[in-house]
Amino acid sequence: MQLTGKNHIGFQLTAHSKKEFKCFSSVTQEELPTRYFEASKAEVDQALKLAERGFKNYKQLSPNDRARLLDQIALEIDNLGETLIKQAQLETGLPESRLVGERSRTTGQLRFFAQHIREGSWVEATIDTANTARHPVPKPDIRSLLGPIGPVVVFSASNFPLAFSVAGGDTASALAAGNSVVVKAHAAHAGTSELVAHAITAAIKKCNLPEGIFSLIHGSSFEPGEQLVLHPSTRAVGFTGSLSGGRALMDLAQKREQPIPVFAEMGSTNPVFILEHALKSKPQALAKQLAGSVTLGVGQFCTKPGLIILMESQEAQVFESAFIDEINAISSAPMLHKGIANSFDNAVTKTLAVSGVAEISRSTDNRDAQQVMGRPILAKVSAEAFLDTPLLHEEVFGPYSLVVTCKTQADFERIANALQGQLTVTILGQGHDLANYQSLIEVINEKAGRLIYNGVPTGIEVCNAMHHGGPYPAASDARFTSVGLKAIKRFAKPVAYQNWPDHLLPQELQNANPLKILRLVDDIYTSDSISD
Amino acid sequence: MQLTGKNHIGFQLTAHSKKEFKCFSSVTQEELPTRYFEASKAEVDQALKLAERGFKNYKQLSPNDRARLLDQIALEIDNLGETLIKQAQLETGLPESRLVGERSRTTGQLRFFAQHIREGSWVEATIDTANTARHPVPKPDIRSLLGPIGPVVVFSASNFPLAFSVAGGDTASALAAGNSVVVKAHAAHAGTSELVAHAITAAIKKCNLPEGIFSLIHGSSFEPGEQLVLHPSTRAVGFTGSLSGGRALMDLAQKREQPIPVFAEMGSTNPVFILEHALKSKPQALAKQLAGSVTLGVGQFCTKPGLIILMESQEAQVFESAFIDEINAISSAPMLHKGIANSFDNAVTKTLAVSGVAEISRSTDNRDAQQVMGRPILAKVSAEAFLDTPLLHEEVFGPYSLVVTCKTQADFERIANALQGQLTVTILGQGHDLANYQSLIEVINEKAGRLIYNGVPTGIEVCNAMHHGGPYPAASDARFTSVGLKAIKRFAKPVAYQNWPDHLLPQELQNANPLKILRLVDDIYTSDSISD
Repeated sequence: MQLTGKNHIGFQLTAHSKKEFKCFSSVTQEELPTRYFEASKAEVDQALKLAERGFKNYKQLSPNDRARLLDQIALEIDNLGETLIKQAQLETGLPESRLVGERSRTTGQLRFFAQHIREGSWVEATIDTANTARHPVPKPDIRSLLGPIGPVVVFSASNFPLAFSVAGGDTASALAAGNSVVVKAHAAHAGTSELVAHAITAAIKKCNLPEGIFSLIHGSSFEPGEQLVLHPSTRAVGFTGSLSGGRALMDLAQKREQPIPVFAEMGSTNPVFILEHALKSKPQALAKQLAGSVTLGVGQFCTKPGLIILMESQEAQVFESAFIDEINAISSAPMLHKGIANSFDNAVTKTLAVSGVAEISRSTDNRDAQQVMGRPILAKVSAEAFLDTPLLHEEVFGPYSLVVTCKTQADFERIANALQGQLTVTILGQGHDLANYQSLIEVINEKAGRLIYNGVPTGIEVCNAMHHGGPYPAASDARFTSVGLKAIKRFAKPVAYQNWPDHLLPQELQNANPLKILRLVDDIYTSDSISD
Repeated sequence: MQLTGKNHIGFQLTAHSKKEFKCFSSVTQEELPTRYFEASKAEVDQALKLAERGFKNYKQLSPNDRARLLDQIALEIDNLGETLIKQAQLETGLPESRLVGERSRTTGQLRFFAQHIREGSWVEATIDTANTARHPVPKPDIRSLLGPIGPVVVFSASNFPLAFSVAGGDTASALAAGNSVVVKAHAAHAGTSELVAHAITAAIKKCNLPEGIFSLIHGSSFEPGEQLVLHPSTRAVGFTGSLSGGRALMDLAQKREQPIPVFAEMGSTNPVFILEHALKSKPQALAKQLAGSVTLGVGQFCTKPGLIILMESQEAQVFESAFIDEINAISSAPMLHKGIANSFDNAVTKTLAVSGVAEISRSTDNRDAQQVMGRPILAKVSAEAFLDTPLLHEEVFGPYSLVVTCKTQADFERIANALQGQLTVTILGQGHDLANYQSLIEVINEKAGRLIYNGVPTGIEVCNAMHHGGPYPAASDARFTSVGLKAIKRFAKPVAYQNWPDHLLPQELQNANPLKILRLVDDIYTSDSISD
């Protein structure tokens, strides 16, 4: 398949603007040949006009027909085979095995959402039947369910070129809920994006659906993204990336005449508290486990553990020395793109310049030879200095972690209280640890979207119960997840029907309950039908 | 009970500031004697510091204990008896019967939420059990549920001095979810607010709970409210009122370093489409029904039908003439306060000055004698002029409605498409009407939170299925309701637990399911326990 570099505006490939850009390969250390055309104002506008029209058709599909589209998209992505993996490798420098795994996750998510909407209970169908005999006012019949919200704009993340990109979780959940989608492709993997866009378009055509359900916008500047967020047809935004990027989109969306929700997942330091008995009993094993998690994917995960909090002790020294050895043994590897490598470099330099912060480890590979290489780095700081320095509370995106040493149990709690909102907080404990640290546990309950016991934060299970989000600045809205099946709730809103004729109600609310979904009927959860 | 005019900061009554105000009685046409003390910066700060501390205690209560508090608040409000009703009458001018009904609704809501959290399934407990044998990566155990978010600031509405005020739906749902609450009392019914604050404080004391779960802030200027929204301890805001007021709070909340959600319900024009067969068959009955809804509570409901859309015809003339007669027969009545009466006056004057808008009715009472009286008014305009004039799309809060006459079915659809987001849209139809107007129905599905067939929008049933909200500008966030049991979802956020020890999980997630709630366990909805 030949890459065109063009925008996918509905079924049209277009290149109106003169603004071009190319992708840099962290593998070949060279620019890749394809020229990508940043979308013009007219192209962005056309994408959203089509999205509005596409939405009006698409939302009328049955859940089964929407599920068929999601399954077909998964199939078309699988059909891209090696081509997709090779392109993603070139553009991101990620190893083949990781990308093959990420593709499975991507198609798995699409099929998971297909299954979810086929089952159908996610719409929270709720029915309160009438009581015409009620005095003094008769009780009306009220029924409500969740439905789609309209065109959704999705910003791809650079660190998951498949699973958080063109056909990633945001797109899958938005389409599952019945919305049309316009994706702003990440400029660092524009070719991968184009291939997936072709797959989605092919699936839409095979399902005989009209254009406008999906468009792809290229751009290396801020303008197309800004226009997408400000466009009056846009009803919600999904984003995964940096705090500065996410916040900029949130502020933009609030400036609209009609503000819209922005679901931004903006990363986190993912603190790990190593409690005393755990530290005592297996310092080496914990060091190995954490070193693996810190450097997984060259540290380019929003759930990378960036803070390790432990008590000063002999065992802490054993742990630290093992941690350093583990990190030193891990080679540098190419980061996703130059921008990320430079940001990592700058953030590490700034951090290490903080008084009280000591570098304790540096893997031995020569960093300067290849500018995009990320070299694993450990630093260390006292609880006191950590508490005094806001900079140390910020995420450093890359293979870096900061060990914070405490003198008392109270230090643990002070650190927990000082934490910003987090995607995850991890507790490594054993024996009486949890009983001894009850108030610490209380505090972290408020701080994170996911609490992990004796594990690592990297590796996000895609399932019903997953919550990948957290208080700001981890995410823009602590009430929603960007991973797992509940991600669909971001792109849905309720509608209530009062005394509405049964045959005109959505199937989910009809007396006969033809879809056999779970409903809350007059205070009882049931899949039964209602007698007329 | 003697009114003090003081702020309720936790269990303390305080009056630090020199800024005082009094309430004006629309009944006596005089200022009432009590001086109310606008909260100082220090008082607002103290209220939220206590709210943070109160939250840390309160969130640890079992659902049963929280329910006990809600029930006790309801009891204490009932115990205020005549005193409360008389004070509310003086301050709002609303008739006794209405206020007695509103009190029932208020205590009913509190008891309804108590029942809701006793039942407990609202937390959406979701469990995906581990599969340690899964290849290549073992599947962790993930469990999630909704929990409280922290201190909630509630702005009282003027038009429901009980049900949307100090112990109204926002406070009830926030407390039910496990949050502490700071209420900004409405300056127009400050005495009513103080009485209810006493009842809440009494209930907290009788339940042996610590201070900080509830505080009440007085103020007649914007400052205390602004400080409440900007305070770092505030986690969410509930508001019912005008679009300008709600939007100001939304913008403030977004300017915070850590933005927080504002749930603002900001009113609506609540269009009523009268379809042809309905109009033909019962023009008089519809006129009577709509006149009652337009003037109910002197038109001071966010669901007052402010637009009546119908087809030019002989029957339309019969309807119009009956509508005018009905409206003319309804007396003026005192509005809630001078500000609302003046706004109503101004809005009507501006509307009637629009070219093409004709006043068709004016009830005969003499308006000028009593400045706060609201006199029912009907106006009429062509579909064309309506579509051309954005001003006519705005809510006029008071006993006013605008009849929009159409020439073709396409006019109906053009009007529907041009509508702003609405709390409600009503269809009055009969026979083939719905079949004939399918595409109109499609459009209004996108425009409103609640669709009503052959009823009136006023009268909002408090039940599981109610959705009282809608696309902006009807509400700040179309995904949430401010009335009905789902209102609790505004003030809750998910937390996920990964491989968390069973005995440390919230009861709702423990294997034994001690609360016997409905849970989603490995894709199955069940109230069963999980075998260890």
